Amino acid sequence: MLRILGAIALCFASAAMSAPPIRLVIHGGAGTMSRTELSAEREQAIRADLERALRAGHAILAKGGTSLDAVTKAVVILEDSPYFNAAKGAVFNAEGKNELDASIMDGATRKAGAVAGLHRVKNPILLARAVMEQSKHVMLIGDGAEVFAKSVGIELVDPKYFRTEERWKQLKEAQAKERASASVESTEKSAYFGTVGALALDRDGKLAAATSTGGMTNKRWGRVGDSPIIGAGTYADARCAVSGTGWGEYFIRAAVAHDICARVEYRGDSIEQAANDVVMTVVPELGGDGGVIALDAAGNYAMPFNTQGMYRGTIGADGNVSVAIFRD
Amino acid sequence: MLRILGAIALCFASAAMSAPPIRLVIHGGAGTMSRTELSAEREQAIRADLERALRAGHAILAKGGTSLDAVTKAVVILEDSPYFNAAKGAVFNAEGKNELDASIMDGATRKAGAVAGLHRVKNPILLARAVMEQSKHVMLIGDGAEVFAKSVGIELVDPKYFRTEERWKQLKEAQAKERASASVESTEKSAYFGTVGALALDRDGKLAAATSTGGMTNKRWGRVGDSPIIGAGTYADARCAVSGTGWGEYFIRAAVAHDICARVEYRGDSIEQAANDVVMTVVPELGGDGGVIALDAAGNYAMPFNTQGMYRGTIGADGNVSVAIFRD
Repeated sequence: MLRILGAIALCFASAAMSAPPIRLVIHGGAGTMSRTELSAEREQAIRADLERALRAGHAILAKGGTSLDAVTKAVVILEDSPYFNAAKGAVFNAEGKNELDASIMDGATRKAGAVAGLHRVKNPILLARAVMEQSKHVMLIGDGAEVFAKSVGIELVDPKYFRTEERWKQLKEAQAKERASASVESTEKSAYFGTVGALALDRDGKLAAATSTGGMTNKRWGRVGDSPIIGAGTYADARCAVSGTGWGEYFIRAAVAHDICARVEYRGDSIEQAANDVVMTVVPELGGDGGVIALDAAGNYAMPFNTQGMYRGTIGADGNVSVAIFRD
Repeated sequence: MLRILGAIALCFASAAMSAPPIRLVIHGGAGTMSRTELSAEREQAIRADLERALRAGHAILAKGGTSLDAVTKAVVILEDSPYFNAAKGAVFNAEGKNELDASIMDGATRKAGAVAGLHRVKNPILLARAVMEQSKHVMLIGDGAEVFAKSVGIELVDPKYFRTEERWKQLKEAQAKERASASVESTEKSAYFGTVGALALDRDGKLAAATSTGGMTNKRWGRVGDSPIIGAGTYADARCAVSGTGWGEYFIRAAVAHDICARVEYRGDSIEQAANDVVMTVVPELGGDGGVIALDAAGNYAMPFNTQGMYRGTIGADGNVSVAIFRD
C-alpha cells in the first residue's frame, strides 16, 4: 500500500514537473508618457488595475482554467478600468464617439474572433469571443456586429458609459491643435496608445491572445487599426502568442503578430529574439512605433517596446506579480 | 565612336537580360463549379474578361509601368465584369445589399490600403489604393470609408449598379434553402467564391498585390472575410506577393498571404512550395478551402487551389495569355 501511495506521489510530482509553467502577460498600451506627467496617484491606480487583471487571470490558470478564460478575464478588467484606451475610458473619434475594436485567438485550435467599429458593446472582448465561439465567422463590423451581440445576449450600454472627462479633453485638445496647424492628421502620431492585451499559457500548455482598443483620438472615416486584425494586433498558435500596441497602420503593414510567430516557427528564433527584432527593427524601419507582449508554449515571454513606456505586467506559477511602466 | 556605341548596346542588352521578367497573375475566384453547369457561352465570356484584364495589365507593365498600376487596372476590369463576385456582380448579403471589401499592397514599400463594408463605391480597389496613397491610414470601414471616398473624388454609384439578376437569384435560393433546413449558416460553405485578385512584377522588380470581393451570399452581421485583411487575403513584400480566394474565415485564421511570404523569407521555400503547402495542407487541416495566386520577385508563380476550379490566368514578357478554370 505504501508502495502504491509512493508511486502515486511520484506520478503527481512528475506530472507537476513536466506540466508547463502557467503564465499570464498583459499590457495596457505603449506610448509617449513621461514620469513627470504621470501623477503618483494616477500611477498607483494604473498599477493597481494591472495587478488586479493579473491576479484575476492567474486565479483562473492556477485552478486549471483555460488560457482563453484567463485572457478574457484580464482584458475585461482592463476594459472596465477608465485608465486604458479600451471600452470604458476609450478615446473619442473625430465625431465625438467612442469606437471600439477587439480580437481574440485560441492558439491550440487557431480559432479566432474579431470585432470593429462598435459603439454600444460594454466589453468588446466578450463579443470577439462570442464571434469565435457562437458564429461561423471570424470578423464582424459595425452595426451588424451589434445585432449579433444582441442575438447572443452580450451586454449593450448607452454610448455615454464609455465617456471619461480626460479622454474628452484629449479630443478637444487634438481638435484645437489640428485647427491651429491646419493639418488633418498632425495630432495622430502621439494619440494612439492605451490599447490593452493579454496572453496566457495554461496547465495544458495551450496559449491564447486577446487585444482591445478604442483606436486613435480624433480618428476619422471608420479607421481601423491593428487590434482587431488577426495576424497584425493579435495572433496565437500552438507555440506562440502575441498582442500588440502601437501605431496600428505599421503593425498591419508588418503583420506584426503573425510575423513574430512565423520567425519562431520557421527560423527557430526564441520568442524574445523574434519579438525584439520585429518591434525594435522591422516596425521602426517602416516608420512606426509601439510594443508587443509575446509568450511561447514553454512560458518564455518578452515585452519589448520602442516608445518611452509601456504599461505591462506578468504573473507566473509562483503568483508573484511584476508590473512596470517605464524602462526600469 | 563605334566602340562607345558597342558598349552602349552591350549595356542595354545586359540591362534587358538582368531585368526581371514582367509578369501578371490574376484570379477570378476558386470554388465549386462543374463543367456541366458552366454553359459554353458563359465560359467564353468569363475567359474573355480574364484575358482582357491580363492584356490591360500587361500593356502597363510592358511599357515600364508599375506593378501597382497593373494590378489596379486588372482588378478594375474584373470588378466591372458581371461574372465575378466583386463590385458589379457581387453577391447579396442577408439584407439584400451588396457589401464590398478590397485591399491592395505595394511590395517595395509595404504600404497598404484596405476597405470593408462598402455599399456605394463603384470600384472598391480604387478606394483601397486611395486609402494607401492619400490617407495615413491602412484600413477604413463602412460609411466612414465612403465619406473618405467622396473627399478624394472616388466614384460613388447608386447601390442598384452592383445588382445582377443571377446574384439575386442565388440569394433567394440560399434563403429558401436556409428556411428549409432551419439552419442559419448551412448554405454558406458553397456560397463564397468569385473574389478577384491580381499580382504583378514590374520592370523594376517590384511586386504588388490586390484583392476585391463581395464576400459570401446571404452573409450577416457585417461579416468581413479575408479579402480586406492585409496578411490574410492580400500581402506583398520585396520578394513575394499573394492574393487569396476561398473560405475567408480560414484564410484569416491561417494568415494565409503572410504565411506564404514568411515561408519564402524565413525558410527559403520556393513560392510554389510555400503556396502549395498552405493551400493544400494548412487550410484544409483547419477545415477550410480555396486557392491563392502567388508570385515572387524572379517571376516564378503558383496558382494552387483545393476546390473543383479556380478562374485564373497569367501573362509574361512574351505577351502570351494563359487562362484556365478547371484542373486542365
